[in-house]
Formats: sequence, C-alpha cells, structure tokens
Amino acid sequence: MSDIITAIAPVNIAMIKYWGKRDEKLILPLNDSVSATLDTNVMCAKTSVCARPDILENEIWLNGIQTSFSNQRLQNCLNSIKAIAREQQSVNEELLSWNVRICSVNNFPTAAGLASSAAGYACLVTALARLYKVKTDVSKIARVGSGSACRSVYGGFVRWHAGVQADGSDSIATQIADSSHWKEMRVIILVVADTKKHISSVKGMSCAVKTSELLKYRVQVCAPTRVKQICEAIKDKDFSTFAEITMKDSNQFHAVCLDSYPPCVYMTDVSHKIVEVIHKYNEICGAVKVAYTFDAGPNACLYLLEKDVPEVLSLIKHIFPTTSDDFIKGLDAPTTHIDLVKEIPMNPLEPNLLKYLIYTKLGNGPQVITDESHLLNAQGNLL
Amino acid sequence: MSDIITAIAPVNIAMIKYWGKRDEKLILPLNDSVSATLDTNVMCAKTSVCARPDILENEIWLNGIQTSFSNQRLQNCLNSIKAIAREQQSVNEELLSWNVRICSVNNFPTAAGLASSAAGYACLVTALARLYKVKTDVSKIARVGSGSACRSVYGGFVRWHAGVQADGSDSIATQIADSSHWKEMRVIILVVADTKKHISSVKGMSCAVKTSELLKYRVQVCAPTRVKQICEAIKDKDFSTFAEITMKDSNQFHAVCLDSYPPCVYMTDVSHKIVEVIHKYNEICGAVKVAYTFDAGPNACLYLLEKDVPEVLSLIKHIFPTTSDDFIKGLDAPTTHIDLVKEIPMNPLEPNLLKYLIYTKLGNGPQVITDESHLLNAQGNLL
Repeated sequence: MSDIITAIAPVNIAMIKYWGKRDEKLILPLNDSVSATLDTNVMCAKTSVCARPDILENEIWLNGIQTSFSNQRLQNCLNSIKAIAREQQSVNEELLSWNVRICSVNNFPTAAGLASSAAGYACLVTALARLYKVKTDVSKIARVGSGSACRSVYGGFVRWHAGVQADGSDSIATQIADSSHWKEMRVIILVVADTKKHISSVKGMSCAVKTSELLKYRVQVCAPTRVKQICEAIKDKDFSTFAEITMKDSNQFHAVCLDSYPPCVYMTDVSHKIVEVIHKYNEICGAVKVAYTFDAGPNACLYLLEKDVPEVLSLIKHIFPTTSDDFIKGLDAPTTHIDLVKEIPMNPLEPNLLKYLIYTKLGNGPQVITDESHLLNAQGNLL
Repeated sequence: MSDIITAIAPVNIAMIKYWGKRDEKLILPLNDSVSATLDTNVMCAKTSVCARPDILENEIWLNGIQTSFSNQRLQNCLNSIKAIAREQQSVNEELLSWNVRICSVNNFPTAAGLASSAAGYACLVTALARLYKVKTDVSKIARVGSGSACRSVYGGFVRWHAGVQADGSDSIATQIADSSHWKEMRVIILVVADTKKHISSVKGMSCAVKTSELLKYRVQVCAPTRVKQICEAIKDKDFSTFAEITMKDSNQFHAVCLDSYPPCVYMTDVSHKIVEVIHKYNEICGAVKVAYTFDAGPNACLYLLEKDVPEVLSLIKHIFPTTSDDFIKGLDAPTTHIDLVKEIPMNPLEPNLLKYLIYTKLGNGPQVITDESHLLNAQGNLL
C-alpha cells in the first residue's frame, strides 16, 4: 500500500475572466485569463489520497460526504497522472493497479459560492502527482478537472494561456509574479446573503459560446489586450491600471452573460450596490483605490492595498450594517474606525445584506504537507 | 395672434434599441432602431401651442409646471420649424416674430419611467408644424428634440434610419407597417416599484460610446442584422422571430450598459425575475409566446398576441401578487382566470413588487385634434 499523501491548495480569483471553451472535453478556453492566488492560511482545499490493494473501487469523499467517482473530469485527472507515471516509470505497476481513496475538504464555507472546484482540483492533482511521483506540469492536468484549477497551481499572479494546439498541450498556466512581488496587495471578499440558485459556470459558459455575439468580440479583441495590459500593470505594481482593468473585465464578463440567450444573471441588486459604493469611493478619493470583481455569483472580491484596508472596511461596515458579531473572517483586520459618513453621500442600507467578509492576501501555490495532519489514517480510512 | 393648435402623440417602445450617438448635437444615432407605436387612447402626450404678440418670452409648461425655455433641444425644434416656415413662406413674418406658449401634459404617470420625452417632442413638433403650416418630414425635427421622438411621428412599426450624412438629413424615421397590419399584437407594460435614481439616457449612452468596447461590435455587426431580420418578421407577422430578436436586443442593450465604465445598471432583481418568468413560460408553452424588452429603467414591456393575454395576465398576477384594486390600467383586460399554478414551477413572490400594469396595443401617429379640448384658452392662457 502507498503512503498517505496530503496536499493543500489555494483559491484563485480572476481579474481577466475565463468564460467560454474552444474545446469542451479538453477544457480549452477561448481566451487567456489572469488571476491572483489567495493565501492558503485563510482559504484552502485540503486533500489526502492513498492507493491500496484493499480498496475495492476508487472512492472520493468531499467535505465528509462520499460522492460518485463516475465524474468524467475526476477520472480524466486520475488517468492522466497514471499515464504519465507509466511513461516516466516513476512507480511500480502494482501501485498503479490499486484503487485510490480521495478525501477532500475546504476550510472555507462552500456556501460562500467561491470557486472551490479550482482549489479542489489543484489540490487533488498535487497530491496524486506526489503519490505517483510524476514530474510534470500539473497545471495541464488540473485544467482537465476544472479549467480555472490550472491557475491554482501557482502562487502570486498567474496567467492561463488559451494555447492554440488542438490537443491542449500549450493550454497551461504560468506564473506572472510570485506572492512576494506585490506584498501590499490585499483582498476582501464580500459574501452576499443570497438564496437564488445560479446557473452553473459550465452551463452558463456553454450558453454564452452558443448564443452571445458579444463574446466573439470579447475573445478576439478585448480580452487579449487586457491580458497584456494587466500583466504589465502587475509587473509595474501600477495599482490604478490593475484596478481599472479588473473592474472593466468583471463588468464585461457579466455583460456577456447578459447577452447570452436566455440571459445568465449572476449579480444581484446588492452586487450592483457594491459596485456603486466602490466607484463612489474611488471618485471621492480622486484615485482608484479599490477594484471589484465578480465571478459566477453575487459575491464581490475587492482588491486593494494594505494601507487602504482600514478605511474601506469601515466604509463597507457603514453602508452594509450587520448584526453579526463574527462579520470579518480571515486575517486580523485593522480596527481603526474612520468616519467616512460625511464624505460618502450614501446612507446605510438595510442590515445583513452581506453575510460576512473574508479579509485575506495573496499566497503561494499548492503544497504537499508533511505535518501528518492527514484526512486518512495509516489504514487509509477516514479520520 | 394665432389659433390654438393642439396635438396628441404616442409613446413608442423599441425592439431594436437606440443607444449611442454618432453626433451629440444633431442627435444622430450609431445604429438604426425599430419600434412599435402605442395606442394614444391609453398613453399619449398632448400639447397646445399658440403664438401671440402679447407673450413676452417663449414659455413652456410641462404637466402644469412652468419650465425653462433655455433647453437647447427645445429651442432647436422651434428654430428648425420656423426656418422651414420662412423658406416655404407658409405663414407671414409677423406670426414668426411672436413668442410662443407651449403647454404639454402626459396622460400617463411620469413615475412610470416610460419614455415620455419621445411622445412629448413628437407632439410638440406636430403642433408647431401645424401652427406654422410647414410641410416637411417632421421626424427629422422631432429627432433634434429627443432622438427616439422621431419614431413617435408614425403609427404601427417604425424604423429610425441612422443615416450616413454628416448633417443628419438622412437620419429620419419611416413606417415599416401601420397599426392595422398586425392587429393581434398587444402590449403589457409592467411598472416596477422602484425608488432608485437612474442614470439619464443621455448620460448613459454618452458613457457607453466613450467606454464600451462591446458597443462597437453591436453597432457594426449585431444591430444591422437584427434590424433587417425584425423588419422581415414584422412584414411576415412571424411572432416567434419578432419576439426572440426583441428579447435578445433588450439583453444586448443592457449588456452594453453594463460594459460601460462605470457600469450603467437599469434592470433590477425584479426586472430579471420578469425575464426568468417569461423564459419559463415560453419554455412550458413550447413556443415563444411573449417577448420582454426593457428601456433605461426597470420596467418591462411585453409584446404578445391577443389570444395569449388572459393566460399571461393571470401568470403575472400569480407570480407578482398585488394588494392594489386598480392593478391593470389601459384597455379592458380579459378577466378569465387560468390556473397556471401547477404548470409554472415558480412560487408567488412578495406582494407589490409591481406597482401596476398597463395593457395596451399598437396605434397611430400624432394627430392635430379639432375637438376644442385645448390646454390653452382663446386668450392663450392655461386652462
């Protein structure tokens, strides 16, 4: 039997969005995308894997619940890594013949509607690569699990190249800069209280590819230009350019969703209120100090610099009052209260439109952990 | 002194939207647009004008309130018509030298956020053209008052041609078909309870022209194709094509608004709920029976055929319950109750998300009225 291998992997949030595949099966995107990888100390997926002769069928447990292994994407990941292991003769054939048990958890609420599959697949692929001792670009394998998972394979700022090859061999992620490059960058995730069932990303992007005429123009003209510009802005630590492109691309992504038929709507009135608050704040500051971005759901992700965190947190708490006594999760938040009330001409909204905030920063890529805090015991059973 | 001239003019609702000018001053649009003109018996503007030597300055009264005449668009309309009158020598110079008093009212609540300026300018231009006895294409003059007003100059289905001339001489409206062509067409306007201040159309479209990259593609590729297709669908009375293009173009218009920077958001959660209900209803019917379209505000305008009105009204009343006893305004609405509850898998929402409905149909263009129901008395004073 194998050792228990455990890995953790980060969530990533895209500034230039991935929306639309050129190949559904290989998960090849229509355009390059760019993201930031978040600190695994605040949010991460954790996955333990083992291979044993006494496991009768491949098994996967997600957040404590056994789930079907028939998921094609999951099988693609496992099969890809095993194929490489055979090619590289990295482990013996016996290990490769055994079934696996996979146990994965997220340390952040799945209710947050945050891209947990990216962290999950990046984590799984990292653990399996170690289990089978393969040396390979794991981003390519994470990609066939969940497209954006390939970006969670690196820390800092990451670019997923759409590539041009039909087999997807050049559709990989590369690091633009590591997490130490722009130390001051902070992230606040605003989790919007929302009960609406949203259209899955898979369905939403497939509908957009089939029906949105504007997506074509985005893919051909807008996204490539923005990718180039934001990579420069990241290298130069030019926050206002970074922020403006981020906001514009979030808006364009949601515009394309709305241009789909039937339209896909992920942002709510509360999401749009957040947008309004940020634009008003930047306007009053006379500088772009905060950027918002929204994925396929109503939650906002704000990028800002550390120095502006106290003011922005107190702004958010003013406009979105809460009755929760555990409103800010994540890193220790500065408690300075700054009285923006007079300057921001916006009244507080009704309480509890936001469920909570997560305050975090950028971080590193996946890691195989060696502190023995596995999710499976030495016999390969769930702990 | 002149006679009192009184005109009425209709509201129009665009299926292919006008959003973006190629010339701000002459109000020349970037793309052709297509609309339907609504029955003046349900909604209209009414305007009385007179010219008298004893009026010391040009005066305008809108819905009972005197308003500044310094509005450039208003002056452009008056000056254009007077210039044509001089050219055509249609009236004597004395009449042209006198100041005018203009009194205009809408017979529908301005709170409805419905394009009242289109009806208003079409009405003004019709009345002034009669006052000065000019023979001209009034659509061109209405256009310099408010772009979409040029479409209210004709009944039935109307196309506003963007034109290519720099002086706007070919940016005129033409009738696609009169209101008797497609007698079965009905309109239900859903007035959404909403207190948000929306960005004006003038500002919104100017921002889109400056900042939306997607608008370029819409103007060059999408809108021209749709205009051609919907004109054919109107001629052929092909409802499902008409409806699908209408919905797609409404969505694309709002997508372009969202792609502007900062984004313009006119639709609310309630608007999007209406969209969802219509798509679900069409899906259950297995046919496109209703189309929605949204202008620069949260209110929906539904196009449907007369035979489907009872079912759709009972659907709306089911999903959007009301406590109002005057919920349906306009034409006499069929009272048949149809039990859709079991078929539409959507529960009623909280009461009073909609303020009221206006049930109406297509109608004719502006008319000079001769029944003496003027808004000014024989002395030119307000009644």
